[in-house]
Amino acid sequence: MVTPLFISMLFPVLALGVAAWFVYWIMTRDQGTSEMKKVAGAIREGAAAFMNRQYKTIGLISVVVALGLWAAYYFTDKPAMGWQTALAFMLGSASSAVSGIIGMSIAVRSNGRSAAAAKKSFNEALTVAFRGGAVSGLTIISLSLIGIAGLFGIYRYFGYEAVMIPSLIVGYGFGASLVALFAQLGGGIYTKAADVGADLVGKIEAGIPEDDPRNPAVVADLVGDNVGDCAGRGADLFESTAAENIGAMILGVALYPYFGISGVLFPLVLRAFGLLASIVGVLFVRARENDDPMSALNRGYFITSGLAAVAFYFVTQKMLGNMWFFWAGMIGIATSIVFVYITQYYTESKFRPVKEIAEASKTGHATNIITGYAVGLESTGLTVVTISAALLSSYWIGSHSGVPGGGLYGTAVATMGMLASAAYILAMDTFGPIVDNGAGIAEMSGESGHMRDVMDKLDSAGNTTKALTKGYAIGSAALAAFLLFSAYLEEVHIQVVNLFNIKVFVAALIGAMLVFLFSSLAIRAVGKAAYSIINEVRRQFKEHPGIMRGEEKPDYSKAVDITTRGALRQMVLPGVLAVAVPVIVGLTLGAEAEAGLIMVGTITGILMATLMNNAGGAWDNAKKWIEEGNLGGKNSPAHQAAVTGDTVGDPFKDTAGPSLHVLIKLLATLTLALAALFV
Amino acid sequence: MVTPLFISMLFPVLALGVAAWFVYWIMTRDQGTSEMKKVAGAIREGAAAFMNRQYKTIGLISVVVALGLWAAYYFTDKPAMGWQTALAFMLGSASSAVSGIIGMSIAVRSNGRSAAAAKKSFNEALTVAFRGGAVSGLTIISLSLIGIAGLFGIYRYFGYEAVMIPSLIVGYGFGASLVALFAQLGGGIYTKAADVGADLVGKIEAGIPEDDPRNPAVVADLVGDNVGDCAGRGADLFESTAAENIGAMILGVALYPYFGISGVLFPLVLRAFGLLASIVGVLFVRARENDDPMSALNRGYFITSGLAAVAFYFVTQKMLGNMWFFWAGMIGIATSIVFVYITQYYTESKFRPVKEIAEASKTGHATNIITGYAVGLESTGLTVVTISAALLSSYWIGSHSGVPGGGLYGTAVATMGMLASAAYILAMDTFGPIVDNGAGIAEMSGESGHMRDVMDKLDSAGNTTKALTKGYAIGSAALAAFLLFSAYLEEVHIQVVNLFNIKVFVAALIGAMLVFLFSSLAIRAVGKAAYSIINEVRRQFKEHPGIMRGEEKPDYSKAVDITTRGALRQMVLPGVLAVAVPVIVGLTLGAEAEAGLIMVGTITGILMATLMNNAGGAWDNAKKWIEEGNLGGKNSPAHQAAVTGDTVGDPFKDTAGPSLHVLIKLLATLTLALAALFV
Repeated sequence: MVTPLFISMLFPVLALGVAAWFVYWIMTRDQGTSEMKKVAGAIREGAAAFMNRQYKTIGLISVVVALGLWAAYYFTDKPAMGWQTALAFMLGSASSAVSGIIGMSIAVRSNGRSAAAAKKSFNEALTVAFRGGAVSGLTIISLSLIGIAGLFGIYRYFGYEAVMIPSLIVGYGFGASLVALFAQLGGGIYTKAADVGADLVGKIEAGIPEDDPRNPAVVADLVGDNVGDCAGRGADLFESTAAENIGAMILGVALYPYFGISGVLFPLVLRAFGLLASIVGVLFVRARENDDPMSALNRGYFITSGLAAVAFYFVTQKMLGNMWFFWAGMIGIATSIVFVYITQYYTESKFRPVKEIAEASKTGHATNIITGYAVGLESTGLTVVTISAALLSSYWIGSHSGVPGGGLYGTAVATMGMLASAAYILAMDTFGPIVDNGAGIAEMSGESGHMRDVMDKLDSAGNTTKALTKGYAIGSAALAAFLLFSAYLEEVHIQVVNLFNIKVFVAALIGAMLVFLFSSLAIRAVGKAAYSIINEVRRQFKEHPGIMRGEEKPDYSKAVDITTRGALRQMVLPGVLAVAVPVIVGLTLGAEAEAGLIMVGTITGILMATLMNNAGGAWDNAKKWIEEGNLGGKNSPAHQAAVTGDTVGDPFKDTAGPSLHVLIKLLATLTLALAALFV
Repeated sequence: MVTPLFISMLFPVLALGVAAWFVYWIMTRDQGTSEMKKVAGAIREGAAAFMNRQYKTIGLISVVVALGLWAAYYFTDKPAMGWQTALAFMLGSASSAVSGIIGMSIAVRSNGRSAAAAKKSFNEALTVAFRGGAVSGLTIISLSLIGIAGLFGIYRYFGYEAVMIPSLIVGYGFGASLVALFAQLGGGIYTKAADVGADLVGKIEAGIPEDDPRNPAVVADLVGDNVGDCAGRGADLFESTAAENIGAMILGVALYPYFGISGVLFPLVLRAFGLLASIVGVLFVRARENDDPMSALNRGYFITSGLAAVAFYFVTQKMLGNMWFFWAGMIGIATSIVFVYITQYYTESKFRPVKEIAEASKTGHATNIITGYAVGLESTGLTVVTISAALLSSYWIGSHSGVPGGGLYGTAVATMGMLASAAYILAMDTFGPIVDNGAGIAEMSGESGHMRDVMDKLDSAGNTTKALTKGYAIGSAALAAFLLFSAYLEEVHIQVVNLFNIKVFVAALIGAMLVFLFSSLAIRAVGKAAYSIINEVRRQFKEHPGIMRGEEKPDYSKAVDITTRGALRQMVLPGVLAVAVPVIVGLTLGAEAEAGLIMVGTITGILMATLMNNAGGAWDNAKKWIEEGNLGGKNSPAHQAAVTGDTVGDPFKDTAGPSLHVLIKLLATLTLALAALFV
């Protein structure tokens, strides 16, 4: 038993060492011209200011929730679980916050260095940016593992029964989810409010190009890419792995008579090996001068997946001794690859959907919107078929494994397969904002020539990787969902969720409605937060006419600060809704109804997130395709219509969609942590 | 036993008599100038041509499905039920078609007469139009009742056990649903394709006003209002009452030990009295010269509801002898009133949501779309709270009635309460296209002065009633849904739908996805069908330049014909999807999974339809509010953005939204009719 736990601690520590080495390597790179340093510095300061304020708010909320948890357990038959759950909750929140902060700090230090490296060599620019992303990926997954394995070890040390422990650490997942919700909401609102604000006043009112240094909102916009994609998605996947680990361990407890403690620790060990595979994958990312950056990134991804598959084989053999589950894991790995292709099909301009949207732009704004929305709706089809196939087949494999109740464990192992490459995927994701920022820094500091081409190429690859990660995140959330339900039902001792029970049905209806209402609030928050920055930019232009003439520097940090405050204010209402509704329903309609709420809320959330992510991505790329000179090119009527679609898609794909991923998992971990209250 | 059945046949026959008298009364009204007669004649011909072609297509599909039903039952353990189900199916299809045809035929004869009457008196214009709508309302509800009561009587005559019969006539509801699906889809696609086509080429390319007689698509546009709102919604509510009657009867069978045959026939008798109440309500609709037409219509509605409540009281006392169910019925009546207010709040310009959309139009197309979409999402909140309250409270009442298993019957009676005023609501609905057409005829035949004002006032009221009916239709569908599930579960002898069974969960996921995919196809169909009419209008303008100079008459009927063919072609794919997916899932994953599919499909469908209807209505009225001179008025930038929103909203609210109401009920009746195949 010590060995698996040891591995689950050792490999993450190793991975942290590699991450530290990447940090060292990045920090010793050249930072470019003094102009570039200045811009990068402004972004760094803005990001730090945002993180500072955001985590203060989140910290406050977390403390309140932790106290609430402690108090709430007082009214159950397990009052002692109160402090345990509250403690695990605080630890989960803190680890999520720490990994977010580390990842972001490195990202905002890699962006300028990647741009500076682009002057020397394409490969170095790519490597700096990707390793900057890998710091996030490795840190997040490592901390998630260390936290859970550590808690497990500590409880063991204090003499708790191994099979009792997973229930005691469910608070960890809830803490991670809550921080993720606010991180993704706050970051998502911030990034789009800054983007919309910068565009509306800068591009449209003042008529200056994107990333123009005269625009007071331009730094806020660059900061936004970091806080949304990097910190937000990082927290999202931190909680995915945490929640899924805990869920799988609880399931392992149910199979204790069959597998013993191995079944409980199996998920941790697999994740540890996945981390190793990701490190190797990251190290393999390099490219020659004229390579497509995507092929370098894809190579690393396939190496990671391949190594993870090999590790799966041996770990399964050693720990479970039942090779059926190896195949379940393979289904997970295959599913993650299929999701990559579905996302590409619906959001890349070389395929039918994006072309269709671009064509529809010729007849105006309305037809662009209608077609894009129809494409988003359509994209749920293949997504659901894939999820259904993965769930049914992994369940079938598990049922045929000869293990009683092995079906569910089959789906759990498939989820582990899907998440095996999480660290690598996260590296790809954070790579996005780093190169996006790098390109922005190059533009703002007046660079030109070959280096700009390199950064534009990387930026375009970054857009693709950001889209892929969203597909991956929603796929893994869907697959993990069923596992988390079963963990919850295990906790509340329910075997059946009868949708024909009127309370369950009504709760299910409310769960689906929660997704719609939450999306409404998230979308609207962007508009409200954008107002504040728009007014600020207008004020600066008016009071300091020198800015537009290029004689005076705009006050970037003021714009950053105002956007920060606007975004944080707007994240509260949807966040509270997401927590309050399931708690109220659980308390009034009971544990079975609560299960109905989370299950149907999850189903609706998966579909809505898919719709929003893919419609948003497709609109974005339809615009880019027209800008490449098709259908009349820039400033043609078709382009104007496409810009409308892109603007509509922004809060869809960068605020509401990603926040829904987190909402889905929050529903599961929240009910898991509060299970004792609902019975 | 004879008395209740007798009443269920007698009252509808009486109602048909009243409808016939209305027809006579309308036909003896003045038709106006020869110019008006000509325009009205063109609309009549166009509508007849559409109906002709549409019902041929639907007839063909129905025969194929009927044969399929017959054959499918051959493989079950109840082969004899094959011809019974197929027969009931054909009867349901035929009745639905007949009531659609009668309603439409009168609607297209009332429009011109209402306009002609407007020259004399406001009250007569209102009365002609409303009675024209009432013909639809009374015919549809009467035929639905006569069909079911008649089938019941016939089976009794041939010696079948009373409690056996409801299961034998489930095919009737399926037939009605299938016709409704295609009628609503075909009509919804037609009306919006014609609308978009007429606007795009007429208003935008040629620069001529709406309803200008030089536009070859203008008659197609006026025909569209009839085939979408009148025939489509008529078929929708025909099936609502049919399906709900059958569902409630099956539930009555389950309570047979307690209520005897009274419980089975109770729904039919209630519906019969609701029909009487509606007749009285219709007769009370009159207005003085300067009245608001809505207050006259609302008065009739409240009289109908009041009388229905009184009838409920006595029928419940006489037939059930348990007054708890009276209160359940009152909940239904109250729910229908609440739905009217929710719809008004979200779609009328005097309230916050529409104003918000109008405000957002000032910052452009994209913000208009984002805000409208957020409003639509938000509107699901109150809707779901109302449905949840109605379901839980009526169930609670039923459970406390002292009748074993009475909870479900409580929700059934609440649904009956909601549908008691169905005939009146349908009259209000059909009133919409009649006055819309009336106003169009006045415009096209060059009328002016006071009469135009009268028709514009009526037209505006018609827009409100159309929106209200959609809210009512979705509310009643939601309430009836739970009842229909229980009827299905009764048929397949299942008490529990365990969402935690992986097959059920996957089927539920597929059910939700079906709603998204169906919406995608329905929305897209409008664009595709619009292409054909756009090309035809362009062709006519090009080949006959005299048209634009007003020297040559455009070929209206050609445009009608092309739109008809386009719309009918496009309705096939979503229609087939709606039938094929549940059949495949039922056959492969079984009866319990099928229940998961229809229940979660229904939940998602309710939310999606609410979103689409309300967003569409709100966009529409935001545009109208700006056109009234607010925020810059017509042709201001805000107005252009609002037009984009309105155009996006058109397929939402007139094609996809209403088709989803039908889809929800089709899922239930289809599974009910095919239940024997899934066990």
